[in-house]
Amino acid sequence: MRIPSFRRALWLAVALLPAAPMVASAQAKTDSVAIRRIYDEALTRGESYENLRYLTGQIGGRLSGSASAEQAVQWGKTTMEKLGLDRVYLQEVMVPHWVRGAKEKAQIRADRGKGVALNVCALGGSVGTGGKLRAGVVEVQSLAELAALPAEKVKGKFVFFNRPMNPRYVETGRAYGEAGDQRRSGAAAAAKRGAVGALVRSLTLAHDDFPHTGTMRYEDGVVQVPAAALSTNGADELSQLLRADAALTVELEMSCQTLPEVKSYNVIGEIKGAKYPEQIISVGGHLDSWDLGQGAHDDGTGCVQSMEVLRLLKATGLRPERTVRAVLFMNEENGVRGGTKYAEVAKQNKENHLAAMESDGGGFTPRGFNIEAAPAVVRKIQAWQPLFVPYNSGQFVVGHSGTDIEPLQDQVKALIGYDCDSQRYFDIHHTAADTFDKVNRRELELGGASMAALIYLLSKYGL
Amino acid sequence: MRIPSFRRALWLAVALLPAAPMVASAQAKTDSVAIRRIYDEALTRGESYENLRYLTGQIGGRLSGSASAEQAVQWGKTTMEKLGLDRVYLQEVMVPHWVRGAKEKAQIRADRGKGVALNVCALGGSVGTGGKLRAGVVEVQSLAELAALPAEKVKGKFVFFNRPMNPRYVETGRAYGEAGDQRRSGAAAAAKRGAVGALVRSLTLAHDDFPHTGTMRYEDGVVQVPAAALSTNGADELSQLLRADAALTVELEMSCQTLPEVKSYNVIGEIKGAKYPEQIISVGGHLDSWDLGQGAHDDGTGCVQSMEVLRLLKATGLRPERTVRAVLFMNEENGVRGGTKYAEVAKQNKENHLAAMESDGGGFTPRGFNIEAAPAVVRKIQAWQPLFVPYNSGQFVVGHSGTDIEPLQDQVKALIGYDCDSQRYFDIHHTAADTFDKVNRRELELGGASMAALIYLLSKYGL
Repeated sequence: MRIPSFRRALWLAVALLPAAPMVASAQAKTDSVAIRRIYDEALTRGESYENLRYLTGQIGGRLSGSASAEQAVQWGKTTMEKLGLDRVYLQEVMVPHWVRGAKEKAQIRADRGKGVALNVCALGGSVGTGGKLRAGVVEVQSLAELAALPAEKVKGKFVFFNRPMNPRYVETGRAYGEAGDQRRSGAAAAAKRGAVGALVRSLTLAHDDFPHTGTMRYEDGVVQVPAAALSTNGADELSQLLRADAALTVELEMSCQTLPEVKSYNVIGEIKGAKYPEQIISVGGHLDSWDLGQGAHDDGTGCVQSMEVLRLLKATGLRPERTVRAVLFMNEENGVRGGTKYAEVAKQNKENHLAAMESDGGGFTPRGFNIEAAPAVVRKIQAWQPLFVPYNSGQFVVGHSGTDIEPLQDQVKALIGYDCDSQRYFDIHHTAADTFDKVNRRELELGGASMAALIYLLSKYGL
Repeated sequence: MRIPSFRRALWLAVALLPAAPMVASAQAKTDSVAIRRIYDEALTRGESYENLRYLTGQIGGRLSGSASAEQAVQWGKTTMEKLGLDRVYLQEVMVPHWVRGAKEKAQIRADRGKGVALNVCALGGSVGTGGKLRAGVVEVQSLAELAALPAEKVKGKFVFFNRPMNPRYVETGRAYGEAGDQRRSGAAAAAKRGAVGALVRSLTLAHDDFPHTGTMRYEDGVVQVPAAALSTNGADELSQLLRADAALTVELEMSCQTLPEVKSYNVIGEIKGAKYPEQIISVGGHLDSWDLGQGAHDDGTGCVQSMEVLRLLKATGLRPERTVRAVLFMNEENGVRGGTKYAEVAKQNKENHLAAMESDGGGFTPRGFNIEAAPAVVRKIQAWQPLFVPYNSGQFVVGHSGTDIEPLQDQVKALIGYDCDSQRYFDIHHTAADTFDKVNRRELELGGASMAALIYLLSKYGL
């Protein structure tokens, strides 16, 4: 691309006028000036990117119960204390403590020839294999297909769940949701049919060698069998080899285990509302992450953006009229204990929660917000949408908000999910590739700015 | 992020309904089905990503006049011939042949201490230094500041243009346009004041060590002095050292030169219109690139997307009613000879051109289209916008289209620029980092699909 000529520059100037009807009222003009200040601060002096660099580089992956999760708690507290907030505190919560263990490998053993290594990782919560576990493999596309198989086809084998995410959906999250039952419930379903374990195609639209971990659940009264994710390349290879030799075996060895629960914390920072301090607006991400990568996009970005919301309000002098809390939730990935605890404490203390926002879809270019609220409340929030159009962040739709704030649903008027571009998220989600270098500074800072802008309006006008 | 629970899935389903008013007419329904077919084909069997892998990996950077540019011409022709089009041909065009040469380095020499290496690259079109060129440095923020300096401050020195791109703009292209005069005209302006060369801060919002090349122009009758880009880190360091020691010198050595012009080609593939073959719609990108990287986002992506438009129309059986041409333009970067020639030949042959589209802003997640046309034509195109909303590609605004199609402006009813997310583009633009690994498959294929969808509507309805 070349530099536009003068004529081009004119076109550009026209193109950059807001596409939406001009905001007319003096009120809206004041808001638009305030929002411009927030974006200016974020784009010129934003701190979330450097905060994320520290969290991912110096602390790294931080699964609930791990030493690095506790380091992250201390980091979150210290970082917020430096912001000069009205209050920074920890909220105690007991969390599961699952550990991957040192051994995690698999290979395909066909009748002839040597073994073919498979890229695998244990699904979070899986039991270990107790040494090497070798068995035949039956491939299915769904839980329903498994249920319909004759018992002898399944008994003593690995069930290999190989349904890919649907690439036709423009929103990758939809494909993730639809394919996720295999990961979540595959092992329990396999065990019920007498299988010895579950091998699950990674939940991603990428074709590569990274296995994607993620949480899975056992069922009461059903034997617990090990469950592993295969990289998509590995799953394709296994499927191909199975077509050539249905009697091949897979040898899986995983030393993962669940240890006793551990005390951990949500990290909370607060700016007291100037007019209505009793009304609380929360904005958060989750501080824990899976252990394989650095937890950059999932969900380091949501944490640093949430803290940045407070910093932006302070730095711009836009003192909120209602109380704004940044919450770094512990244990979203494998338990939602932090989100659950936060809502419990809010209810116990009879706190007055107005709204909650979460950023947990990565730190990509903003699009807008997903709103869960009564229709009249949705319309009220959507009325602010024109203010976000100049920032390409004006997609205000009804949709999924966030897992950590969901437990608050009966106490708030609105749950709001920060929404950003979703194309790259599942390429790296829950893998060793979820690292700082995948995050773009401007995309991240723009996200924090759009979150801060909406939080500011909520704090000014209520709902 | 976890898998949404069932309740979440319901929310998601609601969220994914088109936000725009439902398209009501039977016509629009037919169009919406056709567009869905285009996207399905692109998202499940898209070929542009693998085409780009070949172009960038096997051919690489391809500056006009180079051997690799000629390889790219042959590759474009062969690749389109495999698509079973009605016609594939080359259009001859003479192009400049500037070469970087083997030597390209610089260092800062302060009075005391050893030299500090500076990351530099020659700007495209620059003369070489003829051995080592050592001189003092005067830093300015603008051409105007240079013009106002007393002669003795400039004479015999390097003029160091250090105005950064403005990070406040949400659209990075706007900041690029505004800062670009330093690169384009800096050397000529410096020479007029008696300077020996120009050092220009790279046009990027990133803070790193990559120098960004790009075209610059000399003026008739003004002595030609060498011009180099400094990485932003290098520019910051030079500025800092200058504040400590205004008498420091920079030693620059560049062996770049301009060789005689070379014969090259635009590569053109065509599907004849079923009803109105004489009416032509062009869609293109530019085949040449700067030499430092692989020319992935600039503009390999535009080339493979333009070819993919034809492939998608063929594969979906959506035979266009008007003629659709994919054009891989030669020499956008340092001359626009290909775009100029294409428009000249169109006029000479009295071709009937309806519209032209270009993709030259990278292969990032689609947003929509920038339109240059009379207001009534803009409105006609904007009427199709609801069809693109479900694909997050519904931003149809007046704006810059593309450099290669601009010469066609007097022959078409509309010039259209494919518009995609702009946050990452200038991080890598014109650098060694513009490589295949920066391109996301889905982002790229979604772009080709949205281009094909609009080309299909143009070919069906005209303007």
